[in-house]
Amino acid sequence: MAALFVALIHYPVVDRNGRIVTSAITSLDLHDIARSARTYGATAFFVIHPVAEQREFAGRVLEHWETSHGRQFDSRRQEALGLIRLVTNLDEAIILAEQIAGSPPLIVYTSARPSGGVGYAELRARLERADGAPVMLLFGTGFGMAPAMLERADLALAPVLGPGEYNHLSVRAAAGIILDRLRGR
Amino acid sequence: MAALFVALIHYPVVDRNGRIVTSAITSLDLHDIARSARTYGATAFFVIHPVAEQREFAGRVLEHWETSHGRQFDSRRQEALGLIRLVTNLDEAIILAEQIAGSPPLIVYTSARPSGGVGYAELRARLERADGAPVMLLFGTGFGMAPAMLERADLALAPVLGPGEYNHLSVRAAAGIILDRLRGR
Repeated sequence: MAALFVALIHYPVVDRNGRIVTSAITSLDLHDIARSARTYGATAFFVIHPVAEQREFAGRVLEHWETSHGRQFDSRRQEALGLIRLVTNLDEAIILAEQIAGSPPLIVYTSARPSGGVGYAELRARLERADGAPVMLLFGTGFGMAPAMLERADLALAPVLGPGEYNHLSVRAAAGIILDRLRGR
Repeated sequence: MAALFVALIHYPVVDRNGRIVTSAITSLDLHDIARSARTYGATAFFVIHPVAEQREFAGRVLEHWETSHGRQFDSRRQEALGLIRLVTNLDEAIILAEQIAGSPPLIVYTSARPSGGVGYAELRARLERADGAPVMLLFGTGFGMAPAMLERADLALAPVLGPGEYNHLSVRAAAGIILDRLRGR
């Protein structure tokens, strides 16, 4: 199986009015997405934030779970949070992923907006190839990634849809669902 | 399609030591699971808690999003939270679901623990039958539902698994993934 990386983008994202903003790191995003990343065999989970104070906040959340208190409460939690790498920007995440996996990752943009995009079966098949390039899935916070991030990606993934048109999922649910579609048993 | 209901159980659930406890309602559970329920066409999302103060807390969260302030921030959020019904226990949820759907729901227990359980394709096919009974999916908080809840269910659903053995998903991610497996496009 090709190596799979997850990246959570806090800048550049858009707010409800489509303005480019930096979103705050949310503790529960780290926990939920790390647990999903671990469940679906991701190699690392990059939490990307340009502001040092925000990365330090995230670092303190992780430290808590590395201590004996956190580990005693739930050792499986630490196993998931151990996947997290706090980085400043996407370039840094890509460099680290290449160091870990041995070749540069294919960057995959995810979005709830209808955009065409490659289907799940196709990306899943690519991930299952033993000689496949590593893949990095980008997830946006706030009201989604800024359009500029799409230009950084090698391909866009089709949006997750249910039976109707409403698909306003939380990033925590969307990341779990997309990982399940790509790597679920 | 058969009517689909989602129920989030706060009692009886177990803590990390397997003791029966009552968990607290978490605001983000309401938001995330309501958004997933709305995305996958659920008819209602029952938030089940035996303690009046906890239901009142949840009621205040919902009120905030019914006001013009919350709606202006994000009208799609209110559309999801509008699915929530705050009830005291499972019996009350079952009675309401029967009133809404016209016949009593099949109660489906979900758990991360390996337990055999019916597969996703089978339950999905049942939901797609036009004449099928309504289905209510039970999700546990804390460290999962107490074993007694399994006895209340008509069937148990197979656990969600990735490529490995670790499947310690958050209830917010698990609910999204299970709904996607049953109703995703």
